[in-house]
Amino acid sequence: MVQLKRNKSNYFENTIIISAGDESGVGPEIILKALASNQIPENVRVRIVGSKQNLINTYRSLKLIGIKNIANPDELDIEDIEVSKLNNSSWKTNCGNSSFVYLKEAIKLTKFQPNTALVTAPICKKSWELAGHKYSGQTELLAECFNTRNVGMLFTAKSPITGWRFNTLLATTHIPLSEISKNLIENEDLIFSKLNLLSDFSKQFKKEPTLRVAGLNPHAGEEGILGTEEKDFIKESLEIWKKNNPDVKLEGPISPDSCWISSLRAWNEKGLNGHDGILAMYHDQGLIPMKIIAFNYSVNTTIGLPIIRTSPDHGTGFDIYNKGIAQCQSILEAIKTANELCTKSRLLNTH
Amino acid sequence: MVQLKRNKSNYFENTIIISAGDESGVGPEIILKALASNQIPENVRVRIVGSKQNLINTYRSLKLIGIKNIANPDELDIEDIEVSKLNNSSWKTNCGNSSFVYLKEAIKLTKFQPNTALVTAPICKKSWELAGHKYSGQTELLAECFNTRNVGMLFTAKSPITGWRFNTLLATTHIPLSEISKNLIENEDLIFSKLNLLSDFSKQFKKEPTLRVAGLNPHAGEEGILGTEEKDFIKESLEIWKKNNPDVKLEGPISPDSCWISSLRAWNEKGLNGHDGILAMYHDQGLIPMKIIAFNYSVNTTIGLPIIRTSPDHGTGFDIYNKGIAQCQSILEAIKTANELCTKSRLLNTH
Repeated sequence: MVQLKRNKSNYFENTIIISAGDESGVGPEIILKALASNQIPENVRVRIVGSKQNLINTYRSLKLIGIKNIANPDELDIEDIEVSKLNNSSWKTNCGNSSFVYLKEAIKLTKFQPNTALVTAPICKKSWELAGHKYSGQTELLAECFNTRNVGMLFTAKSPITGWRFNTLLATTHIPLSEISKNLIENEDLIFSKLNLLSDFSKQFKKEPTLRVAGLNPHAGEEGILGTEEKDFIKESLEIWKKNNPDVKLEGPISPDSCWISSLRAWNEKGLNGHDGILAMYHDQGLIPMKIIAFNYSVNTTIGLPIIRTSPDHGTGFDIYNKGIAQCQSILEAIKTANELCTKSRLLNTH
Repeated sequence: MVQLKRNKSNYFENTIIISAGDESGVGPEIILKALASNQIPENVRVRIVGSKQNLINTYRSLKLIGIKNIANPDELDIEDIEVSKLNNSSWKTNCGNSSFVYLKEAIKLTKFQPNTALVTAPICKKSWELAGHKYSGQTELLAECFNTRNVGMLFTAKSPITGWRFNTLLATTHIPLSEISKNLIENEDLIFSKLNLLSDFSKQFKKEPTLRVAGLNPHAGEEGILGTEEKDFIKESLEIWKKNNPDVKLEGPISPDSCWISSLRAWNEKGLNGHDGILAMYHDQGLIPMKIIAFNYSVNTTIGLPIIRTSPDHGTGFDIYNKGIAQCQSILEAIKTANELCTKSRLLNTH
């Protein structure tokens, strides 16, 4: 087992804490698959927060159906937590509850440790709700735990073809489509604060980044004909932010349906000087192109927290639970990205 | 010139009428480039509706900057229309006005001719508005001219890798993002009528098609947590439609951010049995994945009209006017698709 070999070494650069996520989904499977991969850097210590018994059960079921490359929980570092069952509750609700407890514990373990990053396996918001935990996602709980409102849901992926890093930040996140415009109008600083976050993130990689902002409406409103938000405040916000940030090249608002074409090219073609980040106005506007272009390589990372946190960009995959067919590439990328950001942050802080 | 050679033949299967679009954009350039291509089938007669003088001017400017493969307007079949200038109006407004007149004339020429299809070069909605023509797009004018409300804005592309045809129909089209939900709620038959259109279109190619429907909200509402439209009526509409259409395999509502992943695979990998069409809830939800996956091969076609109408899936490209760098692949695909659909419709009608 890769993990065992790693534990024999005495020096680890970074520690990655992984919360096991919803155990009625693919979380345990993708974690065990990822930890058997040789893509995980040797100098990373990995600690899982979850039920050891459950991980063992997953391991056994997968072995029984002939899955080979999976890590054995007995050889892994596990913060073993057995969460008591809630009264009169279904398996789903209990899995919702335990995934919440694992995340809270994983946050604690990350919070007080240097050179430590958090990777979170997928949870189910509905199951959290059934178990009495009212958050629209893990990001929102993280923001609360660190007492910060200004966090950002950033999707990042490194092209295996060109090495280019593709970043998309969401201005609004887990809200109904019908509330997006209202949300942008009522939070007048939203665009500024998200651009600040995206700019700070990008500057870890490039001193004078190029950022793009997607419009909200079809054709970015087409001069007010297809929606007025661009005319009313988005354009003006970008102009103001530009003046205050002369070291950033800011483009937009760009027609959403062509905004990611340049990302597709930079992902596939070597030698192009791609942009350093796109601000999307809403969840699916950013995630549809991200998942198509970067596919399994896309990682969800929360920026604006005092810790580094990444997660795979997919959901719980209830329909493929324990079938052995879940892909671990996204959580692998989440672990690799968490490690890279951890090292980068240490290097930046020592300057 | 390819066109000259074709004109010598006495037999044409289909006629394609092309409206020149907004002449302050790339319309004339992409038309002249496309008509010089050997990708246009020999048995197609092409007639352009626009200003011959303007096409000659474009031809000369492009020749001057060294563009080689372009058709000479003197050798093309042109319905030459010189639209008088509006009083006290800018060039932009006049181009808006003339593009409107070309389209009206092109519709007339298509309407009364058998085996004839319409291809429309891009127009600018703002310029139409400035010239006093209040339509949210060419599709809306077409619907009015044919006195039909139930039309659909379908994007279609044939993969050059696998030959698979990728279709995305928009449930709502050129409206502000904030009005999408209201629009779906107030038009209770919208989903039914769009599914009927998509199903009819798909059945030209496959007897028992598979159709997919994207959700409206992030994660298709995640059981009501991120929006209630799926719970309130989308799911139920799909169930009802399914019962009435047992020959169609209907899937959905699917989480929008993963709905097009299967399209990406069917576009690139041979031997996959891809779906036959996706119904997107709104403009950018459908067009973002369409443009990324099919790129220049995507064609806009209006379904539900008594004529066949296609157009390239891009805008006027004002910023690259007469620079010689506009790509003609999309209008070429529009011409090829119009021709294919024309032939298919004749064959279906003779059975």
